[in-house]
Amino acid sequence: MAIDHISSLFAKLQALSTSDHGSVVSMNIFVALLCACIVIGHLLEENRWMNESITALVIGICTGILILMLSGGRSSHILVFSEDLFFIYLLPPIIFNAGFQVKKKQFFVNFITIMMFGAIGTLISCAIITYGVAKTFKKIGIRSLEIADYLAIGAIFSATDSVCTLQVWNCMIQVLNQDETPLLYSLVFGEGVVNDATSVVLFNAIQSFDINQINPSIGLHFFGNFLYLFTTSTLLGVFTGLLSAYIIKKLYIGRHSTNREFALMMLMAYLSYMMAELCYLSGILTVFFCGITMSHYTWHNVSESSRITTKHAFATLSFVAETFIFLYVGMDALDIDKWRFASDRPATSLAVSSVLLGLVLAGRAAFVFLLSFISNITRKSSKEGISFRQQVIIWWAGLMRGAVSMALAYNQFTLLGHTAKRANAIMITSTITVVLVSTVVRPFVYYFYFPPKITSDHYG
Amino acid sequence: MAIDHISSLFAKLQALSTSDHGSVVSMNIFVALLCACIVIGHLLEENRWMNESITALVIGICTGILILMLSGGRSSHILVFSEDLFFIYLLPPIIFNAGFQVKKKQFFVNFITIMMFGAIGTLISCAIITYGVAKTFKKIGIRSLEIADYLAIGAIFSATDSVCTLQVWNCMIQVLNQDETPLLYSLVFGEGVVNDATSVVLFNAIQSFDINQINPSIGLHFFGNFLYLFTTSTLLGVFTGLLSAYIIKKLYIGRHSTNREFALMMLMAYLSYMMAELCYLSGILTVFFCGITMSHYTWHNVSESSRITTKHAFATLSFVAETFIFLYVGMDALDIDKWRFASDRPATSLAVSSVLLGLVLAGRAAFVFLLSFISNITRKSSKEGISFRQQVIIWWAGLMRGAVSMALAYNQFTLLGHTAKRANAIMITSTITVVLVSTVVRPFVYYFYFPPKITSDHYG
Repeated sequence: MAIDHISSLFAKLQALSTSDHGSVVSMNIFVALLCACIVIGHLLEENRWMNESITALVIGICTGILILMLSGGRSSHILVFSEDLFFIYLLPPIIFNAGFQVKKKQFFVNFITIMMFGAIGTLISCAIITYGVAKTFKKIGIRSLEIADYLAIGAIFSATDSVCTLQVWNCMIQVLNQDETPLLYSLVFGEGVVNDATSVVLFNAIQSFDINQINPSIGLHFFGNFLYLFTTSTLLGVFTGLLSAYIIKKLYIGRHSTNREFALMMLMAYLSYMMAELCYLSGILTVFFCGITMSHYTWHNVSESSRITTKHAFATLSFVAETFIFLYVGMDALDIDKWRFASDRPATSLAVSSVLLGLVLAGRAAFVFLLSFISNITRKSSKEGISFRQQVIIWWAGLMRGAVSMALAYNQFTLLGHTAKRANAIMITSTITVVLVSTVVRPFVYYFYFPPKITSDHYG
Repeated sequence: MAIDHISSLFAKLQALSTSDHGSVVSMNIFVALLCACIVIGHLLEENRWMNESITALVIGICTGILILMLSGGRSSHILVFSEDLFFIYLLPPIIFNAGFQVKKKQFFVNFITIMMFGAIGTLISCAIITYGVAKTFKKIGIRSLEIADYLAIGAIFSATDSVCTLQVWNCMIQVLNQDETPLLYSLVFGEGVVNDATSVVLFNAIQSFDINQINPSIGLHFFGNFLYLFTTSTLLGVFTGLLSAYIIKKLYIGRHSTNREFALMMLMAYLSYMMAELCYLSGILTVFFCGITMSHYTWHNVSESSRITTKHAFATLSFVAETFIFLYVGMDALDIDKWRFASDRPATSLAVSSVLLGLVLAGRAAFVFLLSFISNITRKSSKEGISFRQQVIIWWAGLMRGAVSMALAYNQFTLLGHTAKRANAIMITSTITVVLVSTVVRPFVYYFYFPPKITSDHYG
């Protein structure tokens, strides 16, 4: 443990001492690659097999290969994946923009169903994956993991990635228009957001999990925790949104400058996220509801030019952050350190990845079909219910595991981006495999199953 | 030296280990303070004694006092000043926006005068300050500084702060409209930008300065270096700007999305800055000319909504970055470590600050009046010349020493934000004093000397 600590400190110091010119070089490469992704994404706009996220992934992987060759097989990525970078800079604009641009009416009409999918669904999925992993991993040959690790794996692979879901939805929109299929959109995306609050509770619960003290009150405690977290996070977001609307309206800030309005909206949205993180709440939920409130109240109180600016600037920031994440995931996929462990035992790695993919499919299937069934019973008219085909779509659409899963996996299985144990390295490579497969392969299967021409009529 | 090194490494480690929750707290405070600055700046809009930069400075100082009291006198700031933060994140949007919104015609009409002021003026000012400092500091009681330090001081206090100049110009605009006084605006601001290229050359020259090898060819070498740096930096900026215009026009990117246009402009502008830094060129000059080129070519090729979005979004980013810098300078003004050294010998500190202020005034006066005289001789008609009153305004307007001076002073006299020697600590506090005095006091004198009502007619 002490040696781990010292070696990690040493790694930190190395990173610091080489940060000056090295960080400028990697910034350059990243920004240039982002530009390339945008241009190529534009050129491939009409191609229905590609979307911006897949382009970014592919470019990331190609760059990774190039760096790997140039560095003589030593390293494939130019930035150490940092949770801070992801959670402090990249995630907030994406989720805020999602709230800012969401169709509010459908979201609130389906609120209870969304809550069920997001909260109870995640728990069911987590339980199934944890159980499945605990049963199979010993047989495959992964023995060094503990119960807390199994629970963490359950939580990691239950985290539906709202970022990816948004991306894939942009791709699906050719097939299913958001206006045509509002129920599906709000269910799949809303679930992704609520899912985050559940993940935070789950992760906190797992970290303070004591195997010796399991009693019935834990379930109650857990439920209470979730309710508290959900309510406070939502209220904080709504409050910040309303406050910004009040300030901008009362002080009539647009009178003098558009800049102040835009800056105030941006800063207050970010403040809501950081406040939530500070109080150990779900920042994603807070900033999502802050986005909804701002688009409903603040946006209508600002000047015309601010309205255009905020709408496009928030969308652009979110778009750049998304592209950055996928680029990074692609580049990191080839990290030689992690694959070296995995390549010692390719069969084990393959088995772990397959088991995880199977469990993700099964866990999601279990709760989507079960909860849709319950939801359909409680709805008054059968016309409003979720049809079987729609259930299949919800199942598929939410299968994506992306940056959130990656970040959680890094948190659980690495120490500052470096893996010490063999089992942990395999877990990281398996997470990458699952993310890659679910991101790249899933849309293809989807198109195969629902070719655009046919489905566009069905889901009108 | 070794002990310095180890202690600095230790400080780094401490900063790292406490970064997690602590950085979230300080982010929160900073974002909240930024919001406060915007709201208070709006409320004080009509007050001609205040502007946004002074508001941010005052709020920063008040917060510093509060933190000082809460921490029991241990520390007054919540972020360690980082050159990276300033040069990588805050400066580029400010300078880019200045280029993006500048009145191009006047800038190019006065190009040669601007170049003279920016390049030769800075050298004259640097020489005078270095000479003055070398003559007086020994008498005051500062003995531990070397010739390289004196030269560095000359360069530091010759760096006209284009950020501050822009800010004070926003404040002056009530007195002198940019359209009314295009000559003054382009001279003062243009000088600030060219000044940066000179500073980079100066600083590089000083760092490789060898006292034993002074010969006449150094001057020629220096001049050649400056020309090379100026030309390549400018060309890089213009090239990136034209490339973005070409891509956006040829690929007709606006056809599908406004986001891609905005993202591409933002990323390519940033890329030009980072590329310049990578090649040890003047990033400020590059991104400034990139801004000019983009506003002249790219901006006219994007869709209508992109035009509104980019105009306001770039202005807002620049505005937030400026406010952030002034807030930080205010907060850092009270750093107890540095004042502790200075308070041991208040007379020395006061003398150093006064000498520096006097030299800054004298150095600037020397080159402004001299070069204006030369410029007036070479102009064809006497009507186009720079009048004496205008010369006084140029002298005053460019006196500001701000964030760039601070960053250079930190670079020269501290090791990662900590001062080891007494003389260095006094240099830092003196820099802060000069920045505060030139930022806060200068506009007041200016208003006293040119009351708005009278001057607005004179400089039509």
